[in-house]
Amino acid sequence: MAIRIVQSKQNSRVKELRAALSRPGRGSAEVVALEGFHLVEEALRSGLTIETIFIAQNSERLLNELRILDSVEILALPEEVLASAVTTETSQPIAALARPQLWNWPDLLGHASSQTLIVILAGIQDPGNLGTILRSAEAFGATGAISLSGTVSHWNPKAMRASAGSVFRLPILSVSESDCFTHLRESSIQTLAAMAHEAQPLSKVDLVKSVALVIGAEGSGISDEIASQCDARITIPCPGPVESLNAGVAASILLYEASQQRTTRRARRKA
Amino acid sequence: MAIRIVQSKQNSRVKELRAALSRPGRGSAEVVALEGFHLVEEALRSGLTIETIFIAQNSERLLNELRILDSVEILALPEEVLASAVTTETSQPIAALARPQLWNWPDLLGHASSQTLIVILAGIQDPGNLGTILRSAEAFGATGAISLSGTVSHWNPKAMRASAGSVFRLPILSVSESDCFTHLRESSIQTLAAMAHEAQPLSKVDLVKSVALVIGAEGSGISDEIASQCDARITIPCPGPVESLNAGVAASILLYEASQQRTTRRARRKA
Repeated sequence: MAIRIVQSKQNSRVKELRAALSRPGRGSAEVVALEGFHLVEEALRSGLTIETIFIAQNSERLLNELRILDSVEILALPEEVLASAVTTETSQPIAALARPQLWNWPDLLGHASSQTLIVILAGIQDPGNLGTILRSAEAFGATGAISLSGTVSHWNPKAMRASAGSVFRLPILSVSESDCFTHLRESSIQTLAAMAHEAQPLSKVDLVKSVALVIGAEGSGISDEIASQCDARITIPCPGPVESLNAGVAASILLYEASQQRTTRRARRKA
Repeated sequence: MAIRIVQSKQNSRVKELRAALSRPGRGSAEVVALEGFHLVEEALRSGLTIETIFIAQNSERLLNELRILDSVEILALPEEVLASAVTTETSQPIAALARPQLWNWPDLLGHASSQTLIVILAGIQDPGNLGTILRSAEAFGATGAISLSGTVSHWNPKAMRASAGSVFRLPILSVSESDCFTHLRESSIQTLAAMAHEAQPLSKVDLVKSVALVIGAEGSGISDEIASQCDARITIPCPGPVESLNAGVAASILLYEASQQRTTRRARRKA
């Protein structure tokens, strides 16, 4: 393992790290910046291609706990130089630049043996909510996620942390609204808009067939333009006097219900 | 509406606000500090007794949008004096000191017409998760919540915001572990420990009868000591390769399932 020492905040790799952390994109071709031991470890475990690892001087022992390929560039830098690039308040002694897996439409559709289950992120603003949705999506067997414009980047550091690594493994596509709905229609996948009120109650909706669940922004929900393109509107019945559920919770309950219906159906077929 | 002007960061009410915001307690007798227009508005709407309102000079017009009783003390203060007391990075032009409603055991048990549904917060650390759980609890008809020691304060500003006002309306008791389990046993309420693995799958559990759902800490879950006192262990089946769900999501799915079972049962009885 060859470690190169970097002293300047203006080093081109340090600048690249800083830019990627402060303005994470939503595309799939770009480089992704990871900060903190847990995210770097989870990324390595999930098979991401790590290009560069940045380690604070005197924290090099952390490298021994990671499985790093020989091809990875390793830069050791003074703590304050690393701190100048990362976003967290408690400075992390390690960061990395990585290439995420490239996903295509077929990846999102899942295996032929099971029906498609997609989450469409239509304007989620809070990175914690976004990460939580991706974590639940992977937990409940979703085949993929689609990020529409206006949605916070899933490469946002807080979103990645909240996803507990799912962001590295779940197929995610960032596409335009029209591309999204055209593709889903061509693939015969029903689009279901999650609404706070005035929609079909969740338990009456067939979630065993191939579906895409559309989750709107916190507060404003799904735009009229997007809702009008969906095949149906569904809602989670709440007996209590609240206006709505947290967006991450609502998405997770829809995914749970889909997973339940699918498991029950399979069990019945076997019986 | 009489407004008194305060100039000093050392004013006793300003000091009280600062202390209550920076170290929110978990008891029910103490004063609670609210920051930001939405929380103050929600507290007033939910019937909390507001003692003092702090308003930044030149933002007094905000008071006209609130329904404030004549008995409320109103202090106008320079922006930087208010900023010295509040916790949010974007300084809020309004804050308040309030007395929350005092709850007792009978409040948590609900009305005689419906079965009890309680959430036990057993070590939740993240205020956002805590608030989300309270929001979902109210949404899904929980009769109350119990906060055990080691749980973040529900009067934490982030927890209050995430609760979307539910923290002001849902009966919440902070009690010791032994008090909690003694009372629940005496009231014939079954305690169900939410586990990540190796427990009865949620859909097989009767949640129509009076139950208390125990939610452990993020990461470490429910302590062995608490789990051993519970009547049963339940889990949310996840087909995907994740270790666990977000704690707020897990609690919300349990509450959703309880609400679903109760609604279905009632519908069947009527049929």
